Amino acid sequence: MQADTKATLNRLRRIEGQVRGLQRMVEEDAYCVDVLTQVSAVQTALEQVAVQVLDAHVRHCVADAVAGDDETAATERLDELMTAVRRFAKVRS
Amino acid sequence: MQADTKATLNRLRRIEGQVRGLQRMVEEDAYCVDVLTQVSAVQTALEQVAVQVLDAHVRHCVADAVAGDDETAATERLDELMTAVRRFAKVRS
Amino acid sequence: MQADTKATLNRLRRIEGQVRGLQRMVEEDAYCVDVLTQVSAVQTALEQVAVQVLDAHVRHCVADAVAGDDETAATERLDELMTAVRRFAKVRS
Amino acid sequence: MQADTKATLNRLRRIEGQVRGLQRMVEEDAYCVDVLTQVSAVQTALEQVAVQVLDAHVRHCVADAVAGDDETAATERLDELMTAVRRFAKVRS
Repeated sequence: MQADTKATLNRLRRIEGQVRGLQRMVEEDAYCVDVLTQVSAVQTALEQVAVQVLDAHVRHCVADAVAGDDETAATERLDELMTAVRRFAKVRS
Repeated sequence: MQADTKATLNRLRRIEGQVRGLQRMVEEDAYCVDVLTQVSAVQTALEQVAVQVLDAHVRHCVADAVAGDDETAATERLDELMTAVRRFAKVRS
Repeated sequence: MQADTKATLNRLRRIEGQVRGLQRMVEEDAYCVDVLTQVSAVQTALEQVAVQVLDAHVRHCVADAVAGDDETAATERLDELMTAVRRFAKVRS
Repeated sequence: MQADTKATLNRLRRIEGQVRGLQRMVEEDAYCVDVLTQVSAVQTALEQVAVQVLDAHVRHCVADAVAGDDETAATERLDELMTAVRRFAKVRS
């Protein structure tokens, strides 16, 4: 397993733990604002995962396709990338 | 347990399952763009939790404080609310 | 004119200037990344306007309705507030 | 001037008009929620500009650098792209 795959997996395991922590907070009727703070922490952690995956994707899959000979494949990867970026940035349509 | 607490808890359990699904995808070396799509689904689900908690908070804690006699408490709840909204909306500072 | 209305108006005038600056950059064929940095600055400035307006709205209109006797009006203001917060936070539906 | 530069410029001119419209709304003391709706419309329009510029940047500057012989230049463009995407997506750090 590659180093960055392992790092992503570790992040996702921590996120699973955070989500279980959130369940306990809600079960124990924690203060709403504390729940919101914890939701925000999970969202930040998920964003880091998304950035990590997107970064690897751009530098490997997309760059390889763009540097390769198959122009259709390159365009497809670029279209796909822009769709992912648009969704990641929550672009309103 | 109140109806909306139960609904929030159910959402959080589904999110835990989605995060485990993400771990499997990463372990099995799924296509980056599919991983990103799934991360985005978890983020949407977390947002729904945040909205639900924020909605209940505004209609109960904040509204009660504002309708009550303790002006300092009301101001504190409103300050706290605006801080939560700012963070939720990821306001750049 | 109230102090915060004046502050909002000043911000909007600066934003108008920034948007005209962006037009010049595009006309003079500035480097894409510099254009994106400037777009981001305008977005931050607009967010500050939104936060300022939302803050005043919550502390005056919403708080007054909630503290008042008309329960229907209070509920309407709270519904409207949550709709505005959802849109401001770009909640995916 | 290229077709997409012209399209971006037209969008920016419309945005300038919208910002002036916002100034009038604030001067005439329009209802807060209506101001927020209009701020949101301007933000959507600005996002469209950012997407358009980013799309052109990725398909031209970045793709050319990646397909070229200068590996350092390619890495620089990819780093710069990821920084722009991170800021565009408002990634929390």
